[in-house]
Amino acid sequence: MYPKNTWYVACTPDEIDGRPLGRRICNESIVFFRGDNDRVAAVEDFCPHRGAPLSLGFVRDGQLVCGYHGLEMGCDGKCSSMPGQRVRGFPAIRTYPVVERHGFIWVWPGEADKADPADIPHLHWAESDDWAYGGGLYHIQCDYRLMIDNLMDLTHETYVHASSIGQKEIDEAAPETKVNGQEVTTSRHMYDIPAPPFWQNALRGNDLDPDVPVDRWQICRFTPPSHVMIEVGVAHAGKGGYDAAPEDKAASIVVDFITPETDTSIWYFWGMARNFKPQDEALTESIREGQGKIFSEDLEVLERQQLNLLQHPQRKLLKLNIDAGGVQARKIIDRLIDQERAADRPPETSRAV
Amino acid sequence: MYPKNTWYVACTPDEIDGRPLGRRICNESIVFFRGDNDRVAAVEDFCPHRGAPLSLGFVRDGQLVCGYHGLEMGCDGKCSSMPGQRVRGFPAIRTYPVVERHGFIWVWPGEADKADPADIPHLHWAESDDWAYGGGLYHIQCDYRLMIDNLMDLTHETYVHASSIGQKEIDEAAPETKVNGQEVTTSRHMYDIPAPPFWQNALRGNDLDPDVPVDRWQICRFTPPSHVMIEVGVAHAGKGGYDAAPEDKAASIVVDFITPETDTSIWYFWGMARNFKPQDEALTESIREGQGKIFSEDLEVLERQQLNLLQHPQRKLLKLNIDAGGVQARKIIDRLIDQERAADRPPETSRAV
Amino acid sequence: MYPKNTWYVACTPDEIDGRPLGRRICNESIVFFRGDNDRVAAVEDFCPHRGAPLSLGFVRDGQLVCGYHGLEMGCDGKCSSMPGQRVRGFPAIRTYPVVERHGFIWVWPGEADKADPADIPHLHWAESDDWAYGGGLYHIQCDYRLMIDNLMDLTHETYVHASSIGQKEIDEAAPETKVNGQEVTTSRHMYDIPAPPFWQNALRGNDLDPDVPVDRWQICRFTPPSHVMIEVGVAHAGKGGYDAAPEDKAASIVVDFITPETDTSIWYFWGMARNFKPQDEALTESIREGQGKIFSEDLEVLERQQLNLLQHPQRKLLKLNIDAGGVQARKIIDRLIDQERAADRPPETSRAV
Repeated sequence: MYPKNTWYVACTPDEIDGRPLGRRICNESIVFFRGDNDRVAAVEDFCPHRGAPLSLGFVRDGQLVCGYHGLEMGCDGKCSSMPGQRVRGFPAIRTYPVVERHGFIWVWPGEADKADPADIPHLHWAESDDWAYGGGLYHIQCDYRLMIDNLMDLTHETYVHASSIGQKEIDEAAPETKVNGQEVTTSRHMYDIPAPPFWQNALRGNDLDPDVPVDRWQICRFTPPSHVMIEVGVAHAGKGGYDAAPEDKAASIVVDFITPETDTSIWYFWGMARNFKPQDEALTESIREGQGKIFSEDLEVLERQQLNLLQHPQRKLLKLNIDAGGVQARKIIDRLIDQERAADRPPETSRAV
Repeated sequence: MYPKNTWYVACTPDEIDGRPLGRRICNESIVFFRGDNDRVAAVEDFCPHRGAPLSLGFVRDGQLVCGYHGLEMGCDGKCSSMPGQRVRGFPAIRTYPVVERHGFIWVWPGEADKADPADIPHLHWAESDDWAYGGGLYHIQCDYRLMIDNLMDLTHETYVHASSIGQKEIDEAAPETKVNGQEVTTSRHMYDIPAPPFWQNALRGNDLDPDVPVDRWQICRFTPPSHVMIEVGVAHAGKGGYDAAPEDKAASIVVDFITPETDTSIWYFWGMARNFKPQDEALTESIREGQGKIFSEDLEVLERQQLNLLQHPQRKLLKLNIDAGGVQARKIIDRLIDQERAADRPPETSRAV
Repeated sequence: MYPKNTWYVACTPDEIDGRPLGRRICNESIVFFRGDNDRVAAVEDFCPHRGAPLSLGFVRDGQLVCGYHGLEMGCDGKCSSMPGQRVRGFPAIRTYPVVERHGFIWVWPGEADKADPADIPHLHWAESDDWAYGGGLYHIQCDYRLMIDNLMDLTHETYVHASSIGQKEIDEAAPETKVNGQEVTTSRHMYDIPAPPFWQNALRGNDLDPDVPVDRWQICRFTPPSHVMIEVGVAHAGKGGYDAAPEDKAASIVVDFITPETDTSIWYFWGMARNFKPQDEALTESIREGQGKIFSEDLEVLERQQLNLLQHPQRKLLKLNIDAGGVQARKIIDRLIDQERAADRPPETSRAV
């Protein structure tokens, strides 16, 4: 229950540094590696010789060598050579459109002829020296939509992340959800409140007093299939909030790419992009570590929520105003899935004949 | 395959001390917590908001607060409040009749309107200063009836517990099984035999010579759904055995409450009640530790027996005289299950119309 | 999908030294033990009393005593006694033909009346003082035929065992496969090549210069149901290769008995028999250790290959010249399975009546 004709984040470049990476994405077993001229390639993780996973092998001269009997696979899914064999008649394996961009490897698990790299979202912060990025990856046993819900309703911060970014003022400020084409935005602004510990640190990191009242904002943006970018920040109270001058605020973008592995498991790429002190690598690392700790607090809730839902498949959940972001995001996802299914069906007229 | 309209031991008070406890009982996911005035409450472990387990949350002012988005659940299964929400229209969740008594929390997993706390068994030893009790909990992967069989046929002590309470004289003394209404009693008396190590310790604990011949008894009492109380003891030989004066014997009650988790797993509450030196807490602890070690020896046998039976579902087992206690207990259980099923069915006459 | 009317290696004598061994073979749960006069016995691992695994018990005076309630099982599958019971009417359990020979315990998991110990393969190296043997056992999650394929196509050594016995010359030398009745032989000879590390050690062990060119051979012999004996060795180049005099070569037999546990798991008995320095136990141990390390490298490939094949059951694999040994072995196995099935069916004529 996920769109397949779309770009997902498959991995980060360091994961295919000098070795192939096997990863299941949308239930497809795929191996990623650097082929000719170090260009990233993605093919089925299945050697046509005897079915061993190609990801157990190694890369040599841009070819993926099977670690069992040495079949050499090219980026085009065709066997290029094998010791002692003529390989011309060997069956090819499936390739997947794959692009390296903005610091990520993107894969298109659906029909290859529909893949257009222009559809990969533009990440301005990834291409500018004014910004720094740090992030990580979690493997979580839940439906990818539960993670979207999680990120579009930040009232959970008060409970799940009580000691870092949570505060009761989040619950008290009603969010506003808007749909604009395929983009869903849920915004919340809080005024004249104390900064919670994570943001006190960020203020300090930006040479601002952490102990005075702040205005705080959270602007969650969903785009299909499952990307959620969240503008977050605090400004000294009364300086303009979200629109305050850079010297009065600490702001950043929470970056979330959620890639379905199966119907009930995900690869969750999380991170934070910031445009203050972008060259300060120690700060990047300390933010990354803090965020990693905070985001790990969601894992148990999500996995236990998933188990509960599997045991009660018939039960309807509530759709409150705080859930509007996730609800709208699911509508867009459902529409995309329906479109893919409709395209797979023969047209009505031909069936009527 | 267990009665549901009955009282089971759900947990002990220490397990809900300051925090909720999620536990599956008779395949129902239930969360136990102390609600208003510290009275114990039991509701479905499923938040009506988004399906997270309520047991991941916390208790505040007698309300169970969901750890995901802060929904507050009352002991009546109704949402009492939620930050920023009107909760009047929220769907209620199921509650379970629950009673704290005799040092245990008792739950009724079936139809609530049939629950009568008067049906909770009276445990005289739990309410008297002349008695002391110590016990523990094991989670075992087996049908609860295999544990009943185990406790109603103590010839297994000779093999499973050879170094502590087992002795060949158990096998050699034929047991007597009687059924009295819903109670099954299997008794065994052994005369003029050596005391095995566990009972030598108990004699010492009671200031009696451990090295002289003893009379030993085991009186196992099953009552539905799955409680087994076993009067056990030794007296110096010829002093009257079971009826000997307190100063000539060491006696106690083995306490077993067996609560089905699923069809093939149980929560096994074991313990020992004694009426000698009841104030000696060090003795209570040392007996508890010894019993815990002995009873842990049953786990592998029970779990492996369960696996074997699952692999050979068609195979008939023997019903020897030593098995009579378990056999009779199962008859009573089957009758209760049949009664529950009959009550669930529409009456014959209405179907005939 | 394995023949059952055949002899498999069940275990080695040390595994039943003083205690019973429970092992699943061809999906049959069997317990092996030393019965009367220390003769090996094999019966169902299921106590007819209450279904506990008999392998949890112990052996006393040639009888297998159930560790739960003391039922004593004889080698003939009949209960010989039980404390306090008359056992004459107890149901018997299944016995399995079992033979101790050549340093292994052999079991026949199929129809007992068809078992003939004369069909156990003769292992000349196991009965001669001129030979030494060392080996071990791995439990692997794969179809037993994947392991046969592995052993009949040694080009995998170049990739899986690159640092010990692999070398590119293996891939470059085409193998020759021959079928002779139920025996499949795949041979490869390589001339005037460097010896890889394992064979350099073996040359040293045989007091031969390890740094001069050698001729190397690999002669894999499959016999049903799943035995693979591989003659392997190196001789100083030009001395006659396989036929060189003992003082010019280091040679041995790789011994592989592959016993199906289930459809997708095996007990893999591996070892090496050699006829040089047979009394040198330190050498036996060092070879055993080296071989164990090398053979452990196959486990991940085989288990991951198995998972891949389960996910793509419809996909056809290649059958190259290097795969001919495995392909021919499977043909023989399939024929044996077909014969067993045909024998299980009623004859055509009687059905036509």
